[in-house]
Amino acid sequence: MAKELKDLTKRADNYSQWYNELVVKADLAEQSAVRGCMVIKPYGYAIWEKMQRTLDDMFKQTGVQNAYFPLLIPKSYLCREAEHVEGFAKECAVVTHYRLKNDPNGTGVVVDPDARLEEELIIRPTSETIIWGTYKNWIHSYRDLPVLCNQWANVMRWEMRTRMFLRTAEFLWQEGHCAHATAEESEARTVQMINLYAEFAEKYMAMPVIKGVKSANERFAGALNTYTIEAMMQDGKALQSGTSHNLGQNFAKAFDVTFVNKENKPEYVWANSWGVSTRLMGALIMTHSDDNGLVLPPHLAPIQVVIVPIYKNDEQRAEIAKVVEPIVAEFKQRGISVKFDDADNRRPGFKFADYELKGVPVRLAIGARDIANGTVEIMRRDTLEKHEGKLEGIVDYVAALLEDIQKNIFEKALKRRESMTVKVDTYEEFKVAIEKGGFILAHWDGTPETEDRIKEETKATIRCIPLDAPDEEGVDMITGKPSHRRVIFARNY
Amino acid sequence: MAKELKDLTKRADNYSQWYNELVVKADLAEQSAVRGCMVIKPYGYAIWEKMQRTLDDMFKQTGVQNAYFPLLIPKSYLCREAEHVEGFAKECAVVTHYRLKNDPNGTGVVVDPDARLEEELIIRPTSETIIWGTYKNWIHSYRDLPVLCNQWANVMRWEMRTRMFLRTAEFLWQEGHCAHATAEESEARTVQMINLYAEFAEKYMAMPVIKGVKSANERFAGALNTYTIEAMMQDGKALQSGTSHNLGQNFAKAFDVTFVNKENKPEYVWANSWGVSTRLMGALIMTHSDDNGLVLPPHLAPIQVVIVPIYKNDEQRAEIAKVVEPIVAEFKQRGISVKFDDADNRRPGFKFADYELKGVPVRLAIGARDIANGTVEIMRRDTLEKHEGKLEGIVDYVAALLEDIQKNIFEKALKRRESMTVKVDTYEEFKVAIEKGGFILAHWDGTPETEDRIKEETKATIRCIPLDAPDEEGVDMITGKPSHRRVIFARNY
Repeated sequence: MAKELKDLTKRADNYSQWYNELVVKADLAEQSAVRGCMVIKPYGYAIWEKMQRTLDDMFKQTGVQNAYFPLLIPKSYLCREAEHVEGFAKECAVVTHYRLKNDPNGTGVVVDPDARLEEELIIRPTSETIIWGTYKNWIHSYRDLPVLCNQWANVMRWEMRTRMFLRTAEFLWQEGHCAHATAEESEARTVQMINLYAEFAEKYMAMPVIKGVKSANERFAGALNTYTIEAMMQDGKALQSGTSHNLGQNFAKAFDVTFVNKENKPEYVWANSWGVSTRLMGALIMTHSDDNGLVLPPHLAPIQVVIVPIYKNDEQRAEIAKVVEPIVAEFKQRGISVKFDDADNRRPGFKFADYELKGVPVRLAIGARDIANGTVEIMRRDTLEKHEGKLEGIVDYVAALLEDIQKNIFEKALKRRESMTVKVDTYEEFKVAIEKGGFILAHWDGTPETEDRIKEETKATIRCIPLDAPDEEGVDMITGKPSHRRVIFARNY
Repeated sequence: MAKELKDLTKRADNYSQWYNELVVKADLAEQSAVRGCMVIKPYGYAIWEKMQRTLDDMFKQTGVQNAYFPLLIPKSYLCREAEHVEGFAKECAVVTHYRLKNDPNGTGVVVDPDARLEEELIIRPTSETIIWGTYKNWIHSYRDLPVLCNQWANVMRWEMRTRMFLRTAEFLWQEGHCAHATAEESEARTVQMINLYAEFAEKYMAMPVIKGVKSANERFAGALNTYTIEAMMQDGKALQSGTSHNLGQNFAKAFDVTFVNKENKPEYVWANSWGVSTRLMGALIMTHSDDNGLVLPPHLAPIQVVIVPIYKNDEQRAEIAKVVEPIVAEFKQRGISVKFDDADNRRPGFKFADYELKGVPVRLAIGARDIANGTVEIMRRDTLEKHEGKLEGIVDYVAALLEDIQKNIFEKALKRRESMTVKVDTYEEFKVAIEKGGFILAHWDGTPETEDRIKEETKATIRCIPLDAPDEEGVDMITGKPSHRRVIFARNY
């Protein structure tokens, strides 16, 4: 590990390479034998599990229940909603056969041509179509509404360029699919979920986000409106971290899902869907980590505190263990996840470097002299600061320190974002600013054409129209047409 | 619901139809638009989540970590282990293309022939091959061992005849894949996991199981040895409920996974894999439920107690709510999941029938007179017995009652199994016994040929050679060849 750490590319030298290396070196994930699909390793998966557990509890607090819908979608289902199929057709993994057979011309097995499916099946790129095909049977009256379902699932989009966590062919996510009796209720749920995602990002991931609405170009295929949370990575690029879509009655119409309302009249059901994915792992890594490795927010770290004993012989080792064991028990009792690493086959310096690389928020080191003096060396991962503390009351101290780290890394990320956000009024300024990275607040005339031109010329897109954007009269920096508020432009992942 | 309940087929009339209807009527699952794939509805999924959470905690207690491996497996990987591909090739869903395009001859979309994969990809029927292809990169030295990974995943086996939960094309499961330095350690883990499954089945599902070893005919494709837990359903048929496979060095050899042992010599790694699936939902339903609907073990019931108020007017309703709300809070504080169903649009009798159908273990009914008298009507779902109790101390009472129900339904299932297990010494007796259903303990000569003949003539298979089968000298009931212990025959799901 010490060696691996030394080899980690520095962010300033090549941010992209730093990220790719860190994902592998910190044991989060690796490429698999299948193009664009990754293996999520136990340490990476443990972080994802913490995210899942937290989000799942938050969803359930709002009345959402989990369910499970099929992996495969009949091709005809995908085609029911015109914009939807247009958006996903080019990246679909297609199942055409259901059997292999021994190769008649040699060894091994081949696809059995006699086992061709009558209708091809698509591995879900998202589940609106299969779910609305199902909801048709569930919803008849206003009494059946709302339906508030979520599923934790794998999905597949055959992306041409992939990067671990950020853009993979297969990824893990949750997708919520709600059905409502009124447009107002569905819109309220759409907004509620983007607020929930923002709360999760800020409280647990310690990642500041901007809540906003997508422009038509960046909207979900089949939605009336897409809400998003956008985060800024350390290199100034934006990362879309969660979306919530108001689908209007599009899918209800496509799948003929109606209900009898309170006035006893048939009406199409109102829909929304919302999701976050393992992409959040990429966001987490790129928001906080440094040239020494991962920096994990204490609220999501699989190991929050590691205790490393420093000893010269078995007697000292035993002496330290005797003092540390009740402390470990106290941490566990407080719900703080702790690891006492007394493994004998790695030197302390090696362990230190390894836990730094893995982003463990607090490291305690205890030697024989500490036992005699009632002291302990405390290192916080976010600042790498070390100081001596007292063994007495160490659990309370660390509990407070973890909260302090959580707050500190959030504020650090927020300050960075603020320092890398500029207002720009002319296209010339814009072109200079975009090369520096960061968010650019600019006026836009609201047309896809202008957005397309800016994207083509600068690789920047509109990340969102912030929900809290103040009214401000201005003119589009290119067309000079009127604009009533600034939107956020950035290059993005 | 009351109507739906009335329509439920009786077990005695048609056990199989009773099961199919109950799955749908109790809102557990339904058929989807995709052949052989089901939708798991929120109530069914809530039970599965409780199973998952419990098993996951038990796995982690033994040092297992979760990870995630790709959904798709290159065809060439599947072929590396000869018996394995032989076992799974005939039921594989095959991805051949990665893009759709607009139909040049009409509307809609078609598979794009230009987007054919160079190598076909198989939707995992199980993940040994992709995982051992990955482990090759993880394992170099004895210091890297053991690797103890599990994944919660969907898998697909294109079965021709499907039944919800029992046999579906797509199903959810967990699959553990361990790598060890020695044969002994791997065998110990294989046995440890079948013991863990048995403990889960008996303690949480209240389902007695017999632990045993599979005969060669019923072994996992690629395993040296398969351990199983076998349960008996109410109709006397066996249901294989969990398996743990000692894979020897088969997959290590197929994927060339070696490690340097303590003597500095290269050696192939030793493997095991183990899994349970949503099939357990079918086992749960068929073990305990009755003609009134589901009977759920308290340890897995999503709602453990339901409280139904009986009132004539809003004043009474408010009065009852005032008394019930602190009781609800107390249940929650005790970790008992409770639902206070004061919905105004369904009559109490309707609610009673619904919660019976859904298998809620304890129902409390409270009317205005109860409030005056400090009483409550208590109904236990397992026996359908009703009696009057005191409101004071009701939470303690119900907590004990839940444990009593858990114990009672286990014992009921155990007695049924015992009463439906017979020893048989001649093939004539065997043929008579098998028509009655249940487990038959008989001598077998240990050959696949004899087992095949029995299966062909009676549809019975060897469910397992029980781990605790006492030594007993005897002769095979057909061939007369010597046998040293009895094995269990049964028809099975």
